[in-house]
Amino acid sequence: MKLTILGNGAGGPFQGRHYTAQVLETGNQMYLIDCGEGTQAQLYHHRIRYDRVKQVFISHLHGDHVFGLVGLLTSLCLKQRETRLQVFSPPGLQELVEHTFRLCGVITPYPLLFEAVDPSAHALVFDNKQVEVWSIPLHHRTPCCGWLFREKIKPRNMRKEAIERYQIPFSDMPNIKAGADWRDASGQSIPNAELTTEPAKPASYAFCSDTAPSEQVVACVQGVDLLYHEATFLREQEAEAHVSFHSTAEQAAHIALKAGVRQLLLGHFSARYRDLAAHLSEAQAVFSNVLVAEEGQVYGVGDGV
Amino acid sequence: MKLTILGNGAGGPFQGRHYTAQVLETGNQMYLIDCGEGTQAQLYHHRIRYDRVKQVFISHLHGDHVFGLVGLLTSLCLKQRETRLQVFSPPGLQELVEHTFRLCGVITPYPLLFEAVDPSAHALVFDNKQVEVWSIPLHHRTPCCGWLFREKIKPRNMRKEAIERYQIPFSDMPNIKAGADWRDASGQSIPNAELTTEPAKPASYAFCSDTAPSEQVVACVQGVDLLYHEATFLREQEAEAHVSFHSTAEQAAHIALKAGVRQLLLGHFSARYRDLAAHLSEAQAVFSNVLVAEEGQVYGVGDGV
Repeated sequence: MKLTILGNGAGGPFQGRHYTAQVLETGNQMYLIDCGEGTQAQLYHHRIRYDRVKQVFISHLHGDHVFGLVGLLTSLCLKQRETRLQVFSPPGLQELVEHTFRLCGVITPYPLLFEAVDPSAHALVFDNKQVEVWSIPLHHRTPCCGWLFREKIKPRNMRKEAIERYQIPFSDMPNIKAGADWRDASGQSIPNAELTTEPAKPASYAFCSDTAPSEQVVACVQGVDLLYHEATFLREQEAEAHVSFHSTAEQAAHIALKAGVRQLLLGHFSARYRDLAAHLSEAQAVFSNVLVAEEGQVYGVGDGV
Repeated sequence: MKLTILGNGAGGPFQGRHYTAQVLETGNQMYLIDCGEGTQAQLYHHRIRYDRVKQVFISHLHGDHVFGLVGLLTSLCLKQRETRLQVFSPPGLQELVEHTFRLCGVITPYPLLFEAVDPSAHALVFDNKQVEVWSIPLHHRTPCCGWLFREKIKPRNMRKEAIERYQIPFSDMPNIKAGADWRDASGQSIPNAELTTEPAKPASYAFCSDTAPSEQVVACVQGVDLLYHEATFLREQEAEAHVSFHSTAEQAAHIALKAGVRQLLLGHFSARYRDLAAHLSEAQAVFSNVLVAEEGQVYGVGDGV
């Protein structure tokens, strides 16, 4: 999996930051997570072929996470998209988009499906051959959910030398990759371990923004490879974080520690902070493997990168 | 008057262009014209204090002219604006914004007034001490109107030497500036021409986007100082311009010529054109005083600049 940060800012197009949006790629699939105003410009700027996206996941209906969606969906009309697009979010987004489109005369030439997700449940909301996506209940001022992407167990990797040695036909490979032994023309059984190597461990990514610190999040994101957790504020502004249902960098680090995640990525920074060194050091004092999300940066998730 | 172009592009955030938005300043007033997605970021980028805006004029409800409005109005909440904001547009915008705000839980702490304008009428829609704003019927796929800003006749300028020579009291100046003669303590009448000079000629600016070439536009924008006219296409794409109710650079120049305007500013360029030299030369062949709108550029309007 690889994750591209398009926006790491909260509340305004300030300090050169953009509103929340990110792209997660796994295998040949691309997922868009949140879509603040200006997301399509960021996708273009970072040369991401967003017409490849088939699923969009929106955490909540605050402008800085969703006001770019109608523009992006409209631009996909101009690109004459025909492929179906699914949009997952807490309830209300379908009404918002369809009402806007009716008033603005937008008719999508592609099937556009809205999937209303219960933001209070940790539930499987989508899966395909490669991943499962689970909702994560977040604790914000408005119904809000995070998203947990879990790669499925991958097929084992064929050993090239075994293919050549035993002249294994292509048609037998799916079974072998699934773990089966193989019988050659003489009837001899070759054990799977001789034919394959372990696949990369399935990677997992959890997106948690916006949220106050939450034990439910800790439970849902246990052991993930990468946790993106909002850190709108610093400890000094903890009271402000509390009333606005946001987190400090320190609180995000405690969540990462309790959940035993591999790496923490901080984001959703208030416009008041020009520099993010304090976020990093505040979190590092609690949890060592932490990064500050930078726009345009690509972060590898899991072993397979 | 001075005009700042924030976006000169049509249809997509391509070639580094932004969606339509511009700021017109006259006296101490600032008006926002159209508000495509990303407008607030452009305002910030060009260091324009947009909290000064009290009137917004939206030409039509296509995304590239209006999808930045909900974000901008939301950001004004975060800035704790209290000043009233008026938004002029063809019908439907109030419903769009209020519906979105209801679903997203946005409550503006400032009075937000929508003024639905009849896009088929050339009518006075707003005035204050400095300007009148008139709607201009445009010819587009959806109800659409341009905006004509006319400065009101300015007070005459007092001659400094006359003030000193005759010791004219401050309280008499408004009458003199309005054109009256003045009688001194001895009863002698001093003719106004001796006391004042001509004020700057009132400036006028017309914004016409999006529109097919229209005789109604020619009639409405007669003799303006600056006409911003869309030139989405070049002559080669005239058929495409026709079916999409847009104009070519040549057609925009013919409108400027027929209306006897002082200067033409071309904008709203299709994303297919990387370079705009062809737009300029195509229009110049018809009308000599023409410019291509550049983002971030400030254009003076009228004599007083």
